[in-house]
Amino acid sequence: MYQAMTALGVAAESPYTGPIRLDGDPRGASVLILGAGLAGLVAALELKRAGYRVQVLEYNDRAGGRCWTVRGGDRITELGGETQDCRFDEGHYINPGPWRIPYHHHAVLDYCKRLGVTLEPFVQVNHNALVHGRTAFGGRPQRYRTVMSDYQGGIAELLAKATRQNRLDGMVSREDAEILLESLRSWGALNRDLTYAKSVLTSDRRGFERDPGGGLTARPVPSDPVALKDVLSSRLWSYLATGAIYEFQTTMFQPVGGMDMIARAFAREVGDLIRYNAKVTAIRQDASGVTATVADARGGGQPEQVRADWCLCTIPLAVLAQMELNVSAKMQAAIEAVPYSASVKVGLQFKRRFWEQDEHIYGGISYTDLPIRMISYPSTGYGAAGKGVLLGAYAFGPYAYEFTALPAAERVRRAVEWGATLHPQYREEFESGVSVGWHRVPGNLGCHGMWTDARREEHYDALCALDGRILLAGEHASYIPAWQEGAILSSLDAIGRLHRRVVNA
Amino acid sequence: MYQAMTALGVAAESPYTGPIRLDGDPRGASVLILGAGLAGLVAALELKRAGYRVQVLEYNDRAGGRCWTVRGGDRITELGGETQDCRFDEGHYINPGPWRIPYHHHAVLDYCKRLGVTLEPFVQVNHNALVHGRTAFGGRPQRYRTVMSDYQGGIAELLAKATRQNRLDGMVSREDAEILLESLRSWGALNRDLTYAKSVLTSDRRGFERDPGGGLTARPVPSDPVALKDVLSSRLWSYLATGAIYEFQTTMFQPVGGMDMIARAFAREVGDLIRYNAKVTAIRQDASGVTATVADARGGGQPEQVRADWCLCTIPLAVLAQMELNVSAKMQAAIEAVPYSASVKVGLQFKRRFWEQDEHIYGGISYTDLPIRMISYPSTGYGAAGKGVLLGAYAFGPYAYEFTALPAAERVRRAVEWGATLHPQYREEFESGVSVGWHRVPGNLGCHGMWTDARREEHYDALCALDGRILLAGEHASYIPAWQEGAILSSLDAIGRLHRRVVNA
Repeated sequence: MYQAMTALGVAAESPYTGPIRLDGDPRGASVLILGAGLAGLVAALELKRAGYRVQVLEYNDRAGGRCWTVRGGDRITELGGETQDCRFDEGHYINPGPWRIPYHHHAVLDYCKRLGVTLEPFVQVNHNALVHGRTAFGGRPQRYRTVMSDYQGGIAELLAKATRQNRLDGMVSREDAEILLESLRSWGALNRDLTYAKSVLTSDRRGFERDPGGGLTARPVPSDPVALKDVLSSRLWSYLATGAIYEFQTTMFQPVGGMDMIARAFAREVGDLIRYNAKVTAIRQDASGVTATVADARGGGQPEQVRADWCLCTIPLAVLAQMELNVSAKMQAAIEAVPYSASVKVGLQFKRRFWEQDEHIYGGISYTDLPIRMISYPSTGYGAAGKGVLLGAYAFGPYAYEFTALPAAERVRRAVEWGATLHPQYREEFESGVSVGWHRVPGNLGCHGMWTDARREEHYDALCALDGRILLAGEHASYIPAWQEGAILSSLDAIGRLHRRVVNA
Repeated sequence: MYQAMTALGVAAESPYTGPIRLDGDPRGASVLILGAGLAGLVAALELKRAGYRVQVLEYNDRAGGRCWTVRGGDRITELGGETQDCRFDEGHYINPGPWRIPYHHHAVLDYCKRLGVTLEPFVQVNHNALVHGRTAFGGRPQRYRTVMSDYQGGIAELLAKATRQNRLDGMVSREDAEILLESLRSWGALNRDLTYAKSVLTSDRRGFERDPGGGLTARPVPSDPVALKDVLSSRLWSYLATGAIYEFQTTMFQPVGGMDMIARAFAREVGDLIRYNAKVTAIRQDASGVTATVADARGGGQPEQVRADWCLCTIPLAVLAQMELNVSAKMQAAIEAVPYSASVKVGLQFKRRFWEQDEHIYGGISYTDLPIRMISYPSTGYGAAGKGVLLGAYAFGPYAYEFTALPAAERVRRAVEWGATLHPQYREEFESGVSVGWHRVPGNLGCHGMWTDARREEHYDALCALDGRILLAGEHASYIPAWQEGAILSSLDAIGRLHRRVVNA
């Protein structure tokens, strides 16, 4: 089959080529896995199957790590001790961590399949969602479809006119110029005279002033395009690339019921190997094995020592860097070299799904330059009566710090206030909210590892190499940071190398 | 709420403003509805609620008309008498008629909500689906994402260079030119030097030669962009506008289980008013009412007369034009003026969902210039084991005539043969297929009414006007031909006018 596909030139080489095969007898070798996030869970599942003795230590009282879903009744505790109790109604949730799965994240998709996790489409681009800038169009939100159509129509017209006026001579051959014009007309919705102008043609992209109807008085009324110069100065074009990015292309997925359905599915398989509320304070290796010092994360009791032949450590680097650990200077430098991004998400419950009922926005994301950065509408339960929970903020960097410097209630209050700029219904319909700032989550201290080309050059291989009896894995040990696929592929690569070392010893 | 929305400039005026209100007493008036497609069903439901005595005559043995789903065990009979027995497995289907619902088809969506029809997203654009031209790239299918990225990157580079070389002087101000360059860089994935070149940046649009991975040997390998001139000459750019068209924008929907879930939901409400297998051969009005002559569509028995005060006729014009009917010359001319499009769909069942398993195409549409025109993958059951049914052809005009000139088995054979050009797995995995050519379906004789501006100018109002006691409705009496929304809005407009006439009489 693969041969047939390459013959067609349509196969991309994926680093995931199907379930890992760990052939050969580990002869009773034991592995201590630190962290029951996706990297740890994958390792536990596969190493157990391969015949290893496996123990997993997890700081939280649940499996999944950042693969996490917050529902009504859940309590969130931050650095500093402030707690939030989620008061969402039954059936509603937010995913504070990963919330979408690209079609080319083959490892995640394959584990979902093998573990029976049902998927549904996640809508990234919604042409009817809003794009908003504080100083754009007097602060009035625009529909994504109008900005997209007017930007593309505007540049198509510009390029077509330049071509027609022979301004591109020497850049485009005469023959190509003819096809270029034809393509711009089709792609940009240009009229015969190569203008992007008010018409049914352009309204069939940007939407109508009055939609076509049926019977008498059904004639559509075209809408007025916005001139390219106004689209340009609005800067709302900056949101148009999002759906074209490889990771956000169609068809994306989410697990039905929340992202932690993946964590729960793994926990069904390897939950008996996991010790929860286990806070690792030190990791020491010697010639024959690795010993972790473990305290009860809830406090009380005496620290214990847990020992195994090998250790796969998936603890986020921001946490690991503060831990007692005897690895090579190179690995220690790598652990300390990767900063973690700050990020915050706010989930808001409303009395009704007004975004669908009033504004016909079904799933997808609205963008804004307000500190909330975006509003994402649920890609499930379309058209349902009753309440709804949306993602009311998802911000990185300075915005995230600013948000989470505030008490939790105040973050929610501000997310509602800012969101009301896009949806005035917020004020009437808001019920309750929760926020998660990853740099304030004790077991993580950040959203994901931030690599630069220079950092990779200097530290990446040292971070991933087997260091004595210790091996690291997680999204931070991958070229797909922040994504579950990165965590899984990192883990598979690590245990593959560990296994070869063990069976070839 | 509407006020708040217009204040934000985000509300488009829709011709559908919620459930129709037919206030006032029809005082026992009766309406004969011809055709139990969506126009007829909506009229039956609303007129019954308003207190009318309603009878519906339907040619087929089921409600829905073109809102139809073909499943295993169904028999399709064409003009000429050839029959096909669908042999799809349980749970699989094709929708020969409408198969998707745009987010702005408010009337369809509202009836789905009111009647409890569950919807799921219909994927129109799939960046990982194929685009194929017989002479493009040696006939090798390309991924939608590579053509999209390379076209957009190519024109962005061209426009950026022309701007930078001052070739656009007089067309774009110096200030706008700076923002234009910035926007083209972001939107087109251009490097700092304004080129669209092989890099992680462009691969993060078009896809990688080797995707990024985790652990060691995880470094991504960028792919080679195709030069703009080669994209242009391939003509594959012609498929790029599809997802930008108002009717195909995100988020589209389909009913879970097949489009006829809508027809079935209506039939639960008004099925007792419908007489099935009722072939109308003549419609005559006089001063006090309308009489239809009705025969049993299965043959046998004597024709009967059915009479009512008013008649709402939703029979497709291609059929109605051949019927005895006493309406004004203007309406008769309108009925005869609108040709119907030929179209064909072919549904194919395969032993497995190879498009997902081998090629990672989840839902969406591949396009080709072969007579099948497209292949659409099911937007449901993603990742399921077992069999799968896809839409193996959807062609209009000459291609449709060509297809349906052949015996049914031969159409399926050719759809498989052509489809194998895009998916060689067809040959191994194919099991069974069915085809529907709308111009050969006895109750329709075409896919939909084809209007031109000139035809509308001359005939549209006469077609929609109340003519004595006869009123027409259906997608053909709307500005949204071929779409269910057109049928419903046409029907609501018609019965609103009829009702005012009755209560004001």
